[in-house]
Amino acid sequence: MTERRTADDLGAVRALTFDIFGTTFDWWTGVSAQVADIARRAGVDVDAGAITDAWRDEYFAALNAVRTGAREWAHLDVLHREGLDRLLAANGLSDSFDDAARGDLVRSWHRLPLWPDVAGGLARLRPRYTLCALSNGGFALLTNLAKYAGSPFDCILSAQVAHCYKPDIQIYRTTSELLDLQPGGILMVAAHRWDIAGARAAGFRTAYVARPRERGPNRAAENPAEVECDLVVHGFDELATALGR
Amino acid sequence: MTERRTADDLGAVRALTFDIFGTTFDWWTGVSAQVADIARRAGVDVDAGAITDAWRDEYFAALNAVRTGAREWAHLDVLHREGLDRLLAANGLSDSFDDAARGDLVRSWHRLPLWPDVAGGLARLRPRYTLCALSNGGFALLTNLAKYAGSPFDCILSAQVAHCYKPDIQIYRTTSELLDLQPGGILMVAAHRWDIAGARAAGFRTAYVARPRERGPNRAAENPAEVECDLVVHGFDELATALGR
Repeated sequence: MTERRTADDLGAVRALTFDIFGTTFDWWTGVSAQVADIARRAGVDVDAGAITDAWRDEYFAALNAVRTGAREWAHLDVLHREGLDRLLAANGLSDSFDDAARGDLVRSWHRLPLWPDVAGGLARLRPRYTLCALSNGGFALLTNLAKYAGSPFDCILSAQVAHCYKPDIQIYRTTSELLDLQPGGILMVAAHRWDIAGARAAGFRTAYVARPRERGPNRAAENPAEVECDLVVHGFDELATALGR
Repeated sequence: MTERRTADDLGAVRALTFDIFGTTFDWWTGVSAQVADIARRAGVDVDAGAITDAWRDEYFAALNAVRTGAREWAHLDVLHREGLDRLLAANGLSDSFDDAARGDLVRSWHRLPLWPDVAGGLARLRPRYTLCALSNGGFALLTNLAKYAGSPFDCILSAQVAHCYKPDIQIYRTTSELLDLQPGGILMVAAHRWDIAGARAAGFRTAYVARPRERGPNRAAENPAEVECDLVVHGFDELATALGR
């Protein structure tokens, strides 16, 4: 059920920015299925779900390294590849996946399924709002994801454009500048507390989307009760209703 | 009739980048109609076509000032507003258009008609290629234009993202980086020789679109015979056919 957590009026909102991995797309299901498929073709017996979990951990570690300056800025595909190489080595799988297979694994993040409520919710929101993807994924990756999902956004912005990763405040500021809107004219829609917190710090309005299966079946989801935001919803259909569409 | 001007194979092309003003949208017809309408509402008798012509000249002068470093980088809406202010002053019209009317005039560039061949041509090209708007217009302007034209592109890039204007080579390089393609994997589609020349310098493939009415009824169009490019076409339908769609 939709829950309002602030008294802030959302009537000034003109654009909605959507987090992609976990909020709009079910990355865990998509990546784990492709890992299983690529492993099968490589003739390797692996726990695709465990690899997917470990790969996501590598991603967060890499983001932190970039954000703290320990590693220079690099594109998500590069970070994904480095993390994959590390986790394969750590699990004695270095000889199991050749360069081509690793390339296919990295590209598995370019084609993912939408959560079932997304297409309908975005179609209802689109006549009133500018809908913008805003993700740590690379620009080409996001363009591919959106194209294969039926192009539900009006525009795409990426960490690669801002040259920094969410939740750095600069990425939200760059977004506000490019959309030519005050931060309060933008609603960040995300299933991650850290993204919501970053957007709030930049002055965005925020809608938290509870996604109980965001981390897949092996891990507990974030607890929505702990998130400071304007609005909590349980899908994009509910978001459209909350915004009067 | 389509004309091949180089023997270069276009089979490696994965993305098409489209110039917007004059190539995809009929800026002259759209802006002059809105100038006439806003002048009528302001109770001013003006030659809307002459204002439109002069305004475009101001734009090119401003671009040159930015490109030579005489003026620091600014967003197209800002350059349009400054040019408008100058041309109104030069024509004794400073008191005829208030701030709100000038804002409306600047926003006339955010909603323009497509050339009649564009929607059909892009729909044929879209299943095979990534279609990207690449313009000197601001990111929000381009997002508005595309949205009101039925969202015919997969993604939008702007001088505002690259922080430089076409035909600076850096904007094409930024585009190649963001699309994650070698320059030779991108076909620049434009109705301006200077844009085609810039894209070629960056290693893009190029398709020149002859648009005899690009500058409106008062001015002669560019002569396609003088343009060095891979392909000359007379519309986006012809482009789709030339690319085998």
